[in-house]
Amino acid sequence: MAFTVYLSGEIHTDWRDQIIEGVKQAGFDVCFTSAVTNHDASDAAGDHLGEESENFWRDHKSAKVNAIRTKTLIEKSDLVIVRFGDKYKQWNAAFDAGYCAALGKPFITLHAEDIVHPLKEVDAAALAWATTPDQVVETIKYVLNA
Amino acid sequence: MAFTVYLSGEIHTDWRDQIIEGVKQAGFDVCFTSAVTNHDASDAAGDHLGEESENFWRDHKSAKVNAIRTKTLIEKSDLVIVRFGDKYKQWNAAFDAGYCAALGKPFITLHAEDIVHPLKEVDAAALAWATTPDQVVETIKYVLNA
Amino acid sequence: MAFTVYLSGEIHTDWRDQIIEGVKQAGFDVCFTSAVTNHDASDAAGDHLGEESENFWRDHKSAKVNAIRTKTLIEKSDLVIVRFGDKYKQWNAAFDAGYCAALGKPFITLHAEDIVHPLKEVDAAALAWATTPDQVVETIKYVLNA
Amino acid sequence: MAFTVYLSGEIHTDWRDQIIEGVKQAGFDVCFTSAVTNHDASDAAGDHLGEESENFWRDHKSAKVNAIRTKTLIEKSDLVIVRFGDKYKQWNAAFDAGYCAALGKPFITLHAEDIVHPLKEVDAAALAWATTPDQVVETIKYVLNA
Amino acid sequence: MAFTVYLSGEIHTDWRDQIIEGVKQAGFDVCFTSAVTNHDASDAAGDHLGEESENFWRDHKSAKVNAIRTKTLIEKSDLVIVRFGDKYKQWNAAFDAGYCAALGKPFITLHAEDIVHPLKEVDAAALAWATTPDQVVETIKYVLNA
Amino acid sequence: MAFTVYLSGEIHTDWRDQIIEGVKQAGFDVCFTSAVTNHDASDAAGDHLGEESENFWRDHKSAKVNAIRTKTLIEKSDLVIVRFGDKYKQWNAAFDAGYCAALGKPFITLHAEDIVHPLKEVDAAALAWATTPDQVVETIKYVLNA
Amino acid sequence: MAFTVYLSGEIHTDWRDQIIEGVKQAGFDVCFTSAVTNHDASDAAGDHLGEESENFWRDHKSAKVNAIRTKTLIEKSDLVIVRFGDKYKQWNAAFDAGYCAALGKPFITLHAEDIVHPLKEVDAAALAWATTPDQVVETIKYVLNA
Amino acid sequence: MAFTVYLSGEIHTDWRDQIIEGVKQAGFDVCFTSAVTNHDASDAAGDHLGEESENFWRDHKSAKVNAIRTKTLIEKSDLVIVRFGDKYKQWNAAFDAGYCAALGKPFITLHAEDIVHPLKEVDAAALAWATTPDQVVETIKYVLNA
Repeated sequence: MAFTVYLSGEIHTDWRDQIIEGVKQAGFDVCFTSAVTNHDASDAAGDHLGEESENFWRDHKSAKVNAIRTKTLIEKSDLVIVRFGDKYKQWNAAFDAGYCAALGKPFITLHAEDIVHPLKEVDAAALAWATTPDQVVETIKYVLNA
Repeated sequence: MAFTVYLSGEIHTDWRDQIIEGVKQAGFDVCFTSAVTNHDASDAAGDHLGEESENFWRDHKSAKVNAIRTKTLIEKSDLVIVRFGDKYKQWNAAFDAGYCAALGKPFITLHAEDIVHPLKEVDAAALAWATTPDQVVETIKYVLNA
Repeated sequence: MAFTVYLSGEIHTDWRDQIIEGVKQAGFDVCFTSAVTNHDASDAAGDHLGEESENFWRDHKSAKVNAIRTKTLIEKSDLVIVRFGDKYKQWNAAFDAGYCAALGKPFITLHAEDIVHPLKEVDAAALAWATTPDQVVETIKYVLNA
Repeated sequence: MAFTVYLSGEIHTDWRDQIIEGVKQAGFDVCFTSAVTNHDASDAAGDHLGEESENFWRDHKSAKVNAIRTKTLIEKSDLVIVRFGDKYKQWNAAFDAGYCAALGKPFITLHAEDIVHPLKEVDAAALAWATTPDQVVETIKYVLNA
Repeated sequence: MAFTVYLSGEIHTDWRDQIIEGVKQAGFDVCFTSAVTNHDASDAAGDHLGEESENFWRDHKSAKVNAIRTKTLIEKSDLVIVRFGDKYKQWNAAFDAGYCAALGKPFITLHAEDIVHPLKEVDAAALAWATTPDQVVETIKYVLNA
Repeated sequence: MAFTVYLSGEIHTDWRDQIIEGVKQAGFDVCFTSAVTNHDASDAAGDHLGEESENFWRDHKSAKVNAIRTKTLIEKSDLVIVRFGDKYKQWNAAFDAGYCAALGKPFITLHAEDIVHPLKEVDAAALAWATTPDQVVETIKYVLNA
Repeated sequence: MAFTVYLSGEIHTDWRDQIIEGVKQAGFDVCFTSAVTNHDASDAAGDHLGEESENFWRDHKSAKVNAIRTKTLIEKSDLVIVRFGDKYKQWNAAFDAGYCAALGKPFITLHAEDIVHPLKEVDAAALAWATTPDQVVETIKYVLNA
Repeated sequence: MAFTVYLSGEIHTDWRDQIIEGVKQAGFDVCFTSAVTNHDASDAAGDHLGEESENFWRDHKSAKVNAIRTKTLIEKSDLVIVRFGDKYKQWNAAFDAGYCAALGKPFITLHAEDIVHPLKEVDAAALAWATTPDQVVETIKYVLNA
């Protein structure tokens, strides 16, 4: 079956590449999507619509332009992987998880064991918790096994 | 009109009380709801269903019991206030915001200016950003003005 | 039956009062709601959240604060009256009509005959077109007749 | 990804062509749709169903025939651009924007700065405001960047 | 429990009264609603909005004004009874049944055995078929039995 | 654009063929669907699931088997044509119209002028009323004109 | 807050009474609902609509009359308790659980440990698993704690 | 038309193969999907995410991983066949049926006559009851007949 996986969250390690490569090597035809993962480009997403003197409004405009992409891609996906790394606030990842939960969209969390407690509400709504990209690959392979 | 406001997020300061008191003093009949805000009680919400040796599963059970309450209250509310303090991960607050966004439920964020950037996706989906409980009170008063 | 009517659009004539009074005199128990109709207060709805140097953002903040009220009231109403007067752009009235159309919420337009052509898309989605507040009153009386 | 953009609003300038051409030159495979933009044809859309002596009903029939097309195309699109020019009432454009807002369909407004104030409710529900077709092209290019 | 029953269809016999009286005598607190059942008033429902020279448009206006009432009442009801008598086309009754089916709203058909065949699609979507008002009363009594 | 039209109602004249042929000759790529239009086959749709001694249950089983097809096809269509001829009750056609109305699915009625009055509720929810298959063809051609 | 709990499943032990009594003693104002729990009455729910010679159709009619009640009550409830005892197939309980899962309605399963394996799909969609009525009472008390 | 059939329930006989083969021989292009039907693989679906000492949690993890697949496939299907054999509890099959019922997804039950009574609620929500795979094949062939 045609299957689309949206990769949400942390952009500072290569977890996306590991999952995409692992699934590809297993011979499955999965379409992977995500937000724009270039940090600077993402922060500047709204700059072409006019300069802002206030940081809040620059962020606001960029976040909304990004939402055109992310909202559509999440809604079109069959599965979302939400990755939490060991740095930064990553509220956008938790936001995406809540968005999925309200839509009834299946999602898997990917994070280390030491943040299990603050992520308990997010994990409780997820259909699986993985600690490595390889576990996500295994899950996708299982799910798509004919 | 009857109006219900769900207060989501940080549980270590008295922002809930300030909002409730401010709205009450203004003479409006608003029903305020929230998750169980006693931290220990919340963490132990599932303990009566049997002990767990693994932290992950204890958290899992408690988070799900809490979800019975929070999911229902958010869906029944007319407005959600999502508070981010200066400590902790607070991923549950961002999760609630994402949940509201997908439902089309109006929400207001309440946080200091120094976390505007990591909250840009959350703020972009909110109908207002406030920095003080008093601003939230003013907003509710305006919204309910006959 | 309990019945709620949202009155959308023009704020420069007393059409709201005429409808409310007419229905009241007919002895029906209808709850009427609307946006904040004080023009200055409405334009300043977001000012308490911080001053803006750019007109666009001042308007943006105020429009979103107003949306907390209007979105909720429209969704809770049983019927919406959308009034177009002979002045101003009144795009918010047409926006409310489109919002109702997508929700499947019954609405009645109230406008003079000379703007029938530019309002044809709006009227096509409405369940009635009235030219006087009294016709709206008559319609409500008919609809609520036991 | 496959992406469909509905172009709503003003029909007297070539903004549609500019956007379509700009996106095409950038090498993206976007499907553009819109209402029938031939003014006379659009006004006569229902004439083949029988003549009407009353203008209101001629408009009514044509507007409904047009709605068969526009409603379907808006609902099938991923993004809507809503253009307001400097002439005419353009209530249909605002109606489309309200329709999108209720569906949770992302939309971008395209209009000059001098009508920011009367469009504040529409802009508040949009994910971006552009003043030139080129800015819309830039936004679409950003959104579709792999 | 509070329970609302919408009575749709034939207006030439006293089946509504029989059901309402039967349920009342059984001591249940049920709210019964229906379209305006005065035939002449119903046909003239839109006349106060202006005279029409064409029968089609007079009917059109009246049917839409009636829809303000019927659509709302059907959507607010817990159960719909759809009555088909032995005269007239009664397409509005079948229309209401289809409307209920799409909403997932429970409905019971009430009709004689000799029209079972042409009503087979309608009956197939119903949760019960009754041939007498008394059977409907018995069903409501059963359903509401604490 | 890809476009699917469901043809509902009367099965005793060749109106389906006329519409299909007319649209084909105009060079449009439209997918036409409908219920099984062989009357005897349709009545016997459930016979392979076991014989029934009661007519009601034979009809019931067949109507439900037919519903597997019709419900899915209506929901997948972009436009529904609902045809009422001059014979039979045709309640299934009115049922389909009500189903479309509740789904917000655009539909066109096709019937002679002499049944305008009993069809007023159905026509009021339709986006067009045609009296000849050729008018339906014209409407589809207009709607699909690029 | 007003809170409604639907009690689904096994009817041969007094688990419903234990829960109702326990919550009442704790002083909470909860509305409890359920299917008709008198087995014979439930099996005969459709008998007043006419006798059936085939068991399948007698069951069919009764099950549909019961569905008028159960479907409405489940949809109106805030929480569903699904009880599996040690006897009988109890497919209706699992059916109710699936119904809740698709609606996003919170539910708790109540069953002994020895049937954990065959109930794993049901438990996976539940927000809690309890083994005793008292645990359910504790959960409701926690959830409703102001 | 493109048509997808999800095959739910019993995994110990070859009913799936019979249906797939029968439809194939009839020359129809149907896409068949189902849960992972290898019992051991299904029970171990979550094992790669970490070992569990408690059976409940092992089952829980596996059931949720399986749900990623089954939930998506059921929602994407046009028709679901729910098979009940003569062994085991098969609560997951009844759960799937309830899930379909709430979604308004057409489903057919496939089971022997001796379990008609305990399955009456499930059958009441189904669009057909078959006792042999061949009857299901006949139904699909009928439904897809152009």
